[in-house]
Amino acid sequence: MTDPCVVTIDELTSKVNAIFRKSGLTDANAAALTRVLIAGERDGCKSHGIYRIEGALRTIKVGKVRPDAIPRILPSDGSAIVRVDADGGFANAAFELGAPALVEMAERYGIASLVINDCCHFSALWPEIEALTENCLAGLAMCPSYATVAPTGGNRPLLGTNPLAFGWPRPGNDPYVFDFATSVAARGEIELKRQAGEPLPEGWAIDVDGRPTTDPVTALAGAMLPFGSHKGSAISTMIELLAGVMIGDLTSPEVLDLLGTTTLAPFHGELIVAFSPRVFASGRSGDPLVRAETLFDAILGQGARLPSQRRFAARAASLAGGMRISGREMKQLDRLVEHGLDAIS
Amino acid sequence: MTDPCVVTIDELTSKVNAIFRKSGLTDANAAALTRVLIAGERDGCKSHGIYRIEGALRTIKVGKVRPDAIPRILPSDGSAIVRVDADGGFANAAFELGAPALVEMAERYGIASLVINDCCHFSALWPEIEALTENCLAGLAMCPSYATVAPTGGNRPLLGTNPLAFGWPRPGNDPYVFDFATSVAARGEIELKRQAGEPLPEGWAIDVDGRPTTDPVTALAGAMLPFGSHKGSAISTMIELLAGVMIGDLTSPEVLDLLGTTTLAPFHGELIVAFSPRVFASGRSGDPLVRAETLFDAILGQGARLPSQRRFAARAASLAGGMRISGREMKQLDRLVEHGLDAIS
Repeated sequence: MTDPCVVTIDELTSKVNAIFRKSGLTDANAAALTRVLIAGERDGCKSHGIYRIEGALRTIKVGKVRPDAIPRILPSDGSAIVRVDADGGFANAAFELGAPALVEMAERYGIASLVINDCCHFSALWPEIEALTENCLAGLAMCPSYATVAPTGGNRPLLGTNPLAFGWPRPGNDPYVFDFATSVAARGEIELKRQAGEPLPEGWAIDVDGRPTTDPVTALAGAMLPFGSHKGSAISTMIELLAGVMIGDLTSPEVLDLLGTTTLAPFHGELIVAFSPRVFASGRSGDPLVRAETLFDAILGQGARLPSQRRFAARAASLAGGMRISGREMKQLDRLVEHGLDAIS
Repeated sequence: MTDPCVVTIDELTSKVNAIFRKSGLTDANAAALTRVLIAGERDGCKSHGIYRIEGALRTIKVGKVRPDAIPRILPSDGSAIVRVDADGGFANAAFELGAPALVEMAERYGIASLVINDCCHFSALWPEIEALTENCLAGLAMCPSYATVAPTGGNRPLLGTNPLAFGWPRPGNDPYVFDFATSVAARGEIELKRQAGEPLPEGWAIDVDGRPTTDPVTALAGAMLPFGSHKGSAISTMIELLAGVMIGDLTSPEVLDLLGTTTLAPFHGELIVAFSPRVFASGRSGDPLVRAETLFDAILGQGARLPSQRRFAARAASLAGGMRISGREMKQLDRLVEHGLDAIS
């Protein structure tokens, strides 16, 4: 019972879906949430896999997400924006609802946007980006999170770790995809250093007075720093503006004010922009999907990697041979299947 | 004659415009190019001011830009893309031609794009971004350049310094604007270190074998590095894909292949995306332009700066009291007015 075991994607999907159904999520919400968590586990992203289940359940239990949310697409206003009201539920079902309309609109206008409002944002952005690349579109996605990052030159948490994700389609191959926090490190990485009693690398964080620190406890009380100094800080601010303010949804400081903690899934909106290379390149010589391969070949040819390569390798291994789950993890999954929210403190 | 002098914006504009007319640029091309160079000088960006005139003239002289280019807007295909064929001329007149159509389309669709093809790209992106913020739009602009930057993990120049610029409107105030290279440093900064005989800071560049170097000469023979390590490298690659491949125009390695030098203005395309906060926020509570000010106040309130603050301060000083031009600079301007391209070796 406590030995590690290998499970197939289907087996793990059934189990995780059962947990979310037991915890009161509707079919559509449970299925969409399960898909992204299984995708994370499948791709070897343990930090975005089944490890996250308890965070989702805790958010449900304290009433900060609607388990029976029914996302809906708002009537078109003639713009190139698809608007989905997530109805206070997890973002995942809202994205799945809006994605086909976004694909259609991007093919029509060349460029189009999907706005998700009033959602509880959960897990990585790359599953959404891959839903676009599978449809031969390029995509850019971003959202705020909690105020935990100080702007460069500042001394207090204001910006979120604000993820930025991008993808480019490569038919017959894994897409070009990146998805990263605009902070130097994720908050979870600092927490892991604290637990391990290890110092942080230089440049990750500052103390409450804005001075550089390598002590995880001091850092958690202070603020994280943006990647790439003032350039990353500017990009993170752009994400607050476009994916918070512009779409009429919460910014990272407003999210923290609303929830008062960083331990629940954050409540805000999300902005996705889709580009059709076919429409953009129309009338120009050369197939953009073929020309992009020349660029990728040149990157790989000098020994550099494409982003997500490790993730795609893990995916191939999981699809071929299933996923390795520890005995402790499996026991906890079974406990959650049986008790649902009652298993959450 | 060789003492420094103070000139008004109008005086300097006349002189620079006369240089470009003398050098064979048509009225529209000369006026547009003059506007961006004067804007750079006015804003204290000496590296993007009148210092650049000779580079422009050299590019004209060797026949790598058409001085009599007539940019034209291509017929609409029903998409949300405004396409401008720059006709082999400088990008500036092409942008000015397409900008009103982009503004109109962004107000109609909420999101729209301007593609400039077959242009000789000149100077910074922020003047274009500010043309959008003046119309109450947010904007994102990007373009490739020359292959001078190695992707993270690689060892040879492949990516360009690929600038990324963004702006958000602040009616009655200077806009929120950033515009930076996605390399750690600009190539010109390495050249200046070489001339000064100073070592480079760590992390700017690698030698021809991909090893870190702080020697400017070794760096110029090797490759520059992206800002923010793998994250900056991924963003720079995204710019090659969106603003090179997707718009059917040259990537940075293709630009270098075409010109065989990095001393001329690069020939490629440009991608601009405009967002209408009014359209995006429609139906949501709160005015996005007002809510953005809360974010800016919070950034400034903790002692951090907004990007471009220094530039706007220089602008205010120039508008109030003119610009200080050295005797040597003024002499060279007069020489260029008199001799045009004949003054260029």
